[in-house]
Amino acid sequence: MTDNAASELPDADRVVIFSDGVFAIVITLLVIEIHRPDPCPGGLAAALVHGWPSYAAFVLAFVYVGVIWLNHHGIFQHIGRTDRTLNSINLGILGTSALMPFPAGVLAAAFQSGNLDDQRAAVVLYAAVAGLMSAAWLPLFPYLERRSALLRSPRSAGYFHRQATRPMIGVTAYIGAAAAGWFIAPLLAIIIFVAMIFYHAWTSEGSGDLDR
Amino acid sequence: MTDNAASELPDADRVVIFSDGVFAIVITLLVIEIHRPDPCPGGLAAALVHGWPSYAAFVLAFVYVGVIWLNHHGIFQHIGRTDRTLNSINLGILGTSALMPFPAGVLAAAFQSGNLDDQRAAVVLYAAVAGLMSAAWLPLFPYLERRSALLRSPRSAGYFHRQATRPMIGVTAYIGAAAAGWFIAPLLAIIIFVAMIFYHAWTSEGSGDLDR
Amino acid sequence: MTDNAASELPDADRVVIFSDGVFAIVITLLVIEIHRPDPCPGGLAAALVHGWPSYAAFVLAFVYVGVIWLNHHGIFQHIGRTDRTLNSINLGILGTSALMPFPAGVLAAAFQSGNLDDQRAAVVLYAAVAGLMSAAWLPLFPYLERRSALLRSPRSAGYFHRQATRPMIGVTAYIGAAAAGWFIAPLLAIIIFVAMIFYHAWTSEGSGDLDR
Amino acid sequence: MTDNAASELPDADRVVIFSDGVFAIVITLLVIEIHRPDPCPGGLAAALVHGWPSYAAFVLAFVYVGVIWLNHHGIFQHIGRTDRTLNSINLGILGTSALMPFPAGVLAAAFQSGNLDDQRAAVVLYAAVAGLMSAAWLPLFPYLERRSALLRSPRSAGYFHRQATRPMIGVTAYIGAAAAGWFIAPLLAIIIFVAMIFYHAWTSEGSGDLDR
Repeated sequence: MTDNAASELPDADRVVIFSDGVFAIVITLLVIEIHRPDPCPGGLAAALVHGWPSYAAFVLAFVYVGVIWLNHHGIFQHIGRTDRTLNSINLGILGTSALMPFPAGVLAAAFQSGNLDDQRAAVVLYAAVAGLMSAAWLPLFPYLERRSALLRSPRSAGYFHRQATRPMIGVTAYIGAAAAGWFIAPLLAIIIFVAMIFYHAWTSEGSGDLDR
Repeated sequence: MTDNAASELPDADRVVIFSDGVFAIVITLLVIEIHRPDPCPGGLAAALVHGWPSYAAFVLAFVYVGVIWLNHHGIFQHIGRTDRTLNSINLGILGTSALMPFPAGVLAAAFQSGNLDDQRAAVVLYAAVAGLMSAAWLPLFPYLERRSALLRSPRSAGYFHRQATRPMIGVTAYIGAAAAGWFIAPLLAIIIFVAMIFYHAWTSEGSGDLDR
Repeated sequence: MTDNAASELPDADRVVIFSDGVFAIVITLLVIEIHRPDPCPGGLAAALVHGWPSYAAFVLAFVYVGVIWLNHHGIFQHIGRTDRTLNSINLGILGTSALMPFPAGVLAAAFQSGNLDDQRAAVVLYAAVAGLMSAAWLPLFPYLERRSALLRSPRSAGYFHRQATRPMIGVTAYIGAAAAGWFIAPLLAIIIFVAMIFYHAWTSEGSGDLDR
Repeated sequence: MTDNAASELPDADRVVIFSDGVFAIVITLLVIEIHRPDPCPGGLAAALVHGWPSYAAFVLAFVYVGVIWLNHHGIFQHIGRTDRTLNSINLGILGTSALMPFPAGVLAAAFQSGNLDDQRAAVVLYAAVAGLMSAAWLPLFPYLERRSALLRSPRSAGYFHRQATRPMIGVTAYIGAAAAGWFIAPLLAIIIFVAMIFYHAWTSEGSGDLDR
């Protein structure tokens, strides 16, 4: 496939629509993890207040998936065509993103009705899935940098070169968060999780705009 | 990003497709909140009749999300390009809309098997989520009014100026509904919920057409 | 809105994408109604065989929703523009279609573990939802016949005129199926359900092609 | 419909968007089959480790549905127009793909808490659904080979001719896997399942590229 001319490669539109579909579903399924309380008559108000970790986990995961979608959106602005390798890398990104509702729900349940051990296990799970999601982005930037036939403009290669360090920082941070959450305190891991969401939101905007 | 020329901003198509995906999923997930009854043999007919609050909540929530989609559809007819701020505001609108199946299901369960206290808690929850959803629209109109580079036609700025009061009315009405439902009677809140759906449907059609 | 020129009406593309999203989700959610068995160790094979009504209900509902999608697809080939009334009628069609997984699941459960009374209740529920779905199509054809500004070609008005009797036949048949299932035998209703799916598949192809 | 000129047949875009929606939902619903553990306080870490067959089944099913999407994507690159027969064949492909989360979940549960009999039943179920999915592709290639009006380029007929043996190999392999899993060892069937995923991924890339 490496010697195909750019004009013979399929348009990236279908990949973008498919990806948007997956992100739309993932972001909507997060709400399914907010289990409807099933209290005794008269106990609904207390049960709803007791469910605050579910709501916090929903907000955390929603903002995270939203930021990932924003980044995906920004990156695919630079991409005009696709090939099987890009499709496969993209499937890895989607597959790890699709996992997010699961650790978010486990995290909420652990802070709602688990003890300290459960909270430690839940933050390690979340860090593992979020770290995998960062790792799934690792091959994207080097590949796009080398495959100018897929890009809308040759200028974008420099953009992808600068983006390449971001998933490495993500993987490192989530390994650190897992260690901090397990050996020191689960709350420390959650602070890193929130910080990483802000990091992803902030860095994507900055480097994206310098380049356009 | 503020000094980008309009032609460098990405097309709004992908935001629209992503939003449609989220709305399609939200509107379809509402049916999942209609729990399949699990009666003793011979008890299905009675269990189905007993489930009427679930069906009423489905209709209420379906019409509400449908009206929100119609409004979103009408507003994005005016929008040709997008930027990160509009994407973020739109994510807020989608995220609060995605929450709707949860309070709709809680509301149905409270009127099906809860007591008066549960019904009061459920209408306050519904009012809180619906109020948040109204609040998510607040930044949209002032932003679009100022950012003519995103609009298909400069005439639309006036349209967005007139729309700006609608989310404020929504937030106010849902605060009132929560107070009325908690302190007076849950049924009063539900009357306001239904009235707000008609308000959103009616005002959107009226002001939208004057302008086109 | 009645005096708008056709060129000012929004393109129907977004309605089609939104509708496809809803149909895609409905058709996929049907599989969720196939509950994973939770048998004692060694009992899985028997539990899977025992679950045959679930699989039959999945096939029935899948083919039905698939045929509805095919009809929707065929009809929207004739539609180039949309307005708020068409959007609202379309929402009614989508909302009643989105309900299908619920009666399909109840039907499966009633034939799996309910008695004759449950089966009668389940076929009446299915007939009621399927009848509502037919009723939701009733306003579509007269409206499109009168609103030539929405059509791709004025020739299509005749197509919609001939389609108009089909939802009436659907409503009548499902009322008959409910009566037959309740007063005579549930199996009779199921025969009508299957016959109606073939009717919808057959008539749509025939009349659609005569016209193109 | 057979004597329609190509230019009167509807564009394939809507079928592609609908199919992408279904695949996006199927691939995302797989994560719902990873049930959130509900352990006693302090038991979350053990419960998560115990859940490894769920994660393995998620990966297996995700890669499988991803490969099917890649193949669907590759095939529809050759298709420019659609008709009712192609739509119906495509619905069969989507319907059998939509079933995948069910056998994947049953497989995971059988290896997590079932005995040998359950594992045999679960691999037969998976083989049956995967075999049906292969069978759903059988009519696609002969039909496309004969209907050049649907293709973007007449050259593609040869591509579809060579693809035609692939679903037959799939059906045969899954029958073999069911027999091997039931009569010899469930693990043998799982090895064939994994091998088939690699087969589908590999053959699709090879023959697809020779032709373009």
